[in-house]
Amino acid sequence: MKIGRFKEEKSGIDNPGFFGIISKDGESVSKISEKDEIFKILEGFTPGVDFIYKISQLKILPPVLPSKIVAIGLNYKDHAVEMNKKLPEEPLIFLKPSSAVIGHLDYIEIPGISKRVDYESELAVVIGKRAKKVKRHEVSHYIIGYTCMNDVTARDLQTKDVQYSRAKGFDTFAPLGPFIETEVKDPGSLAIKGFLNGELKQKSSTSNLIFDISFLVEFISNVMTLLPGDIIATGTPSGIGPLNAGDKFEIEIENVGKLTNYVR
Amino acid sequence: MKIGRFKEEKSGIDNPGFFGIISKDGESVSKISEKDEIFKILEGFTPGVDFIYKISQLKILPPVLPSKIVAIGLNYKDHAVEMNKKLPEEPLIFLKPSSAVIGHLDYIEIPGISKRVDYESELAVVIGKRAKKVKRHEVSHYIIGYTCMNDVTARDLQTKDVQYSRAKGFDTFAPLGPFIETEVKDPGSLAIKGFLNGELKQKSSTSNLIFDISFLVEFISNVMTLLPGDIIATGTPSGIGPLNAGDKFEIEIENVGKLTNYVR
Repeated sequence: MKIGRFKEEKSGIDNPGFFGIISKDGESVSKISEKDEIFKILEGFTPGVDFIYKISQLKILPPVLPSKIVAIGLNYKDHAVEMNKKLPEEPLIFLKPSSAVIGHLDYIEIPGISKRVDYESELAVVIGKRAKKVKRHEVSHYIIGYTCMNDVTARDLQTKDVQYSRAKGFDTFAPLGPFIETEVKDPGSLAIKGFLNGELKQKSSTSNLIFDISFLVEFISNVMTLLPGDIIATGTPSGIGPLNAGDKFEIEIENVGKLTNYVR
Repeated sequence: MKIGRFKEEKSGIDNPGFFGIISKDGESVSKISEKDEIFKILEGFTPGVDFIYKISQLKILPPVLPSKIVAIGLNYKDHAVEMNKKLPEEPLIFLKPSSAVIGHLDYIEIPGISKRVDYESELAVVIGKRAKKVKRHEVSHYIIGYTCMNDVTARDLQTKDVQYSRAKGFDTFAPLGPFIETEVKDPGSLAIKGFLNGELKQKSSTSNLIFDISFLVEFISNVMTLLPGDIIATGTPSGIGPLNAGDKFEIEIENVGKLTNYVR
């Protein structure tokens, strides 16, 4: 099942939008009647539907509004090598603010203060159920699905600040989507690709993750409680590079989806 | 005016609580009728009241549920000296997850993985209005008030990880409160004290902040949009030290309040 968040194209900026299920052909969206019912599908609940739209009538919003985004640094060996960093012994976690989230087809905005803003293609885990001190073998019960995230980074500020919070925290620096894919059989062996203006720049597989998804959810949930809608961004493979105004960047993850954003 | 969040003592864990205004004598709480009206007081709106409780009948919750907590590292000269760090040229910002927030009289929990968990007494700014690229002289229009925050830190993990997110992100590591004080005439010259088991350990004044509140809000809001309820924790003075099970820690800020927490 593919779940997204949408609003009618001409509704105001304050419209909070709604969750919807995308049809198999990708042409229509069934609006879910109750706001938070979407996370109950983890308990086998089938959400009620109260209206069907053509997807072309809707603006696609980020598929969730996370209370937090926990991201992982240096979780592909080849990226650690290209950044000239030692492989971490434990997952290196950092936070991105939810104010940075934008959706499919939205614009990444380059801040004037940075001379180098990079794309980073990542598989994002979407938490569906409150998760505190979860054991590795139980992790799948807490995940509602997967989506794509671009961990956009002001590389010069990352180096300057040491702490990542500013460099990775600007508004528009967390493109997320397009949708949540709930039926991913093996999230540990998905092809992941990043395309800059149509040219393949990043190409790897989630089988190359140093710390896999079960390990990450166990590790993080032993530090901080994860809530429904929270995102874990699992790290980027090698091939990172700069974005400039006018660029288009696409992240394509096998069985998950393709996230497209523009730059200005 | 002092604003807090409360719930009836015997209500369940899922009770979201309500905002209330504390009487001058501190004995009673006027429940505010509309959930989000509290932030409208910045526009001169007087919120309606629908019930008056004795404060002794209520559990005190954290005064807000922030969408993010932006904290500042090394913002008092004497603390930078005790940590053997250079003074920052710009504010050093980092994020704490909202899942770490607890309220007045709640317990800080020491995680088994850390051998050294420290208190850090801080003045916290509470944002009352969406703030994006705010100019320094306009900052006061975006602040609803002030409260106390303990930026609890697993010092050994902070050193190990370099990134602060894990060391400062454990559940219960962001005690906040007790209330929001909306009438603070000069937040730039408040006495701030930290007491461990009644003994004075931290003593300074917000006049010693390297980057003052107007500067911080301008700086941060040029990176990320601040939302109503968001917290800016302005940094800790010298005198930091460890917490152990059985301890009581109190932060007292002039004209703002006194936040008490226990450790287990």
